[in-house]
Amino acid sequence: MFEIDILVSEVGPRDGLQSVDSIMPLAAKKAWIDAEARAGVREIEVGSFVPAKLLPQLADTAELVAHAKTIPGLTVAVLVPNARGAEAAIAAGADKLTLPLSVSETHSLANLRRTHDQVLNEAHVIADMIKALPPGQRPHFEGSLSTVFGCTLEGAIPDAQIARLAEGLMAAGCDEVGLSDTTGYANPAAVRHLIKLVRGVVGEKALTGIHLHNTRGLGLANVLAALEGGLTTLDSSLGGIGGCPFAPGASGNIVTEDLVFMLEAMGLRTGIDIDALLAVRSIVEKALPGEQLYGFLPDAGVPLGFTQAAPTKEVA
Amino acid sequence: MFEIDILVSEVGPRDGLQSVDSIMPLAAKKAWIDAEARAGVREIEVGSFVPAKLLPQLADTAELVAHAKTIPGLTVAVLVPNARGAEAAIAAGADKLTLPLSVSETHSLANLRRTHDQVLNEAHVIADMIKALPPGQRPHFEGSLSTVFGCTLEGAIPDAQIARLAEGLMAAGCDEVGLSDTTGYANPAAVRHLIKLVRGVVGEKALTGIHLHNTRGLGLANVLAALEGGLTTLDSSLGGIGGCPFAPGASGNIVTEDLVFMLEAMGLRTGIDIDALLAVRSIVEKALPGEQLYGFLPDAGVPLGFTQAAPTKEVA
Repeated sequence: MFEIDILVSEVGPRDGLQSVDSIMPLAAKKAWIDAEARAGVREIEVGSFVPAKLLPQLADTAELVAHAKTIPGLTVAVLVPNARGAEAAIAAGADKLTLPLSVSETHSLANLRRTHDQVLNEAHVIADMIKALPPGQRPHFEGSLSTVFGCTLEGAIPDAQIARLAEGLMAAGCDEVGLSDTTGYANPAAVRHLIKLVRGVVGEKALTGIHLHNTRGLGLANVLAALEGGLTTLDSSLGGIGGCPFAPGASGNIVTEDLVFMLEAMGLRTGIDIDALLAVRSIVEKALPGEQLYGFLPDAGVPLGFTQAAPTKEVA
Repeated sequence: MFEIDILVSEVGPRDGLQSVDSIMPLAAKKAWIDAEARAGVREIEVGSFVPAKLLPQLADTAELVAHAKTIPGLTVAVLVPNARGAEAAIAAGADKLTLPLSVSETHSLANLRRTHDQVLNEAHVIADMIKALPPGQRPHFEGSLSTVFGCTLEGAIPDAQIARLAEGLMAAGCDEVGLSDTTGYANPAAVRHLIKLVRGVVGEKALTGIHLHNTRGLGLANVLAALEGGLTTLDSSLGGIGGCPFAPGASGNIVTEDLVFMLEAMGLRTGIDIDALLAVRSIVEKALPGEQLYGFLPDAGVPLGFTQAAPTKEVA
């Protein structure tokens, strides 16, 4: 595999599929993941270990992890709402666990039905669970600061509360924290501000990733601010599907295709072949009839004379 | 009027309407311009002095200029393809004339049916025409470097050619030059690069504005790069309508509503009241039945607790 500058983390199979009503068949999910990995995507969040009763769309996450683990060079990420989910994720063999902590306590109660202290306690239990594993088998553990750019129920969240919770996640034993614009409230100035704030608390190396939505059309402008702030892992969703089912009006992840185009056009290597990535859309479209896919690049195509930042090849 | 940080220049009545098939009635155009000026927009490109045979949608530009001139504090801008158009624009009393010069000579021949030397000669004639006016009656004269981020016919245009043409426009007597992403090819790195290149030739004060499209979804990311590069005048179109009829696939100006939201959210004062701006959409929608309006903010609304960067009031 070639060296890359930016890690694009595909969250469609988790954040996308949890927001659509129809259930994508397991075979189609596998085909999607296979095709994106072949296009050069190196990290995919394949699902969430939540009760199947709550999100039947993601009930096959364990099988998907097992399948994705057979793809060489792919980091298999999953979302875990609590310690029970983390136990299942570890048993399935996931490479990366993300525990969301909504910095808005109102949203945290609505989304995870837990107070901040309860979520931090789950983080502790998960970190201990991971530490008990042999060194080579420990998944990476991220605490994601969700609704960090503001909450549809509470509005803006005070800096001091965000800083305290970022610190709390690291103290609980997370390897790093991430910023998540659950509600699509971010703007470039806020992205710059929060990177500075949170890195000031946890250090540069413990904040490298951001999860942005395109709810108000600012998704890629926020990406640019995040790049300038030094972040190197960017979440996005093929076709822009997805959002947070518990934050009204928060639909619309940033579109992987448009994101990769912007990065490559700027000379930032993603390792992803744009033509191969665009071809993945038909797999998702066929498996989700009636669901709208987003994206500008798929309609407009690449500019005349466009070349990618660096040669890409299939993951060996 | 309050001090502002960024001048948002509405180009919908020109760049928008020239790309739609239906002809908006003069009364609706006046209502649109009135409502946007009342919302706080301080510069509007109301039309283009091209032969009515070519663009019947803009045949009433002289009447619109006369009407817009009655609005206090509004800069009335028009596009002029040549000296004959400039003569009409001056007679009508326009405050600002923009002459496009396509840096791709192939596109220049297709769009204006003129070589670079012929366009530069027109610029000379126009500048002399303006200089012959009494000092208080001279309109501002901008030469717009179109297809500057690449051309659908030629691809990338060499830096040296762009620099030579920017210099040529200033030597001809333009007050300033502008950058125009006619084809939707721009990316943030290219925006930064071209600002540096062209300012290096014409000086900082002679490049303050940029005309961006959202063809590939990068419009607002490119705005952020332009802001960081020191530009202060940003073109956009209400509802994102418009594009260049001579550059295939180049439709989609950046959306004024989303642009103003991003700027205000970042603390940059535009002087424009967002609620009043959003209300203008219904005027355009009613006057252009069947035409699609774009924008994310109109669907998503402003975030909970959002306040504009500064108080705004109607243009007195």
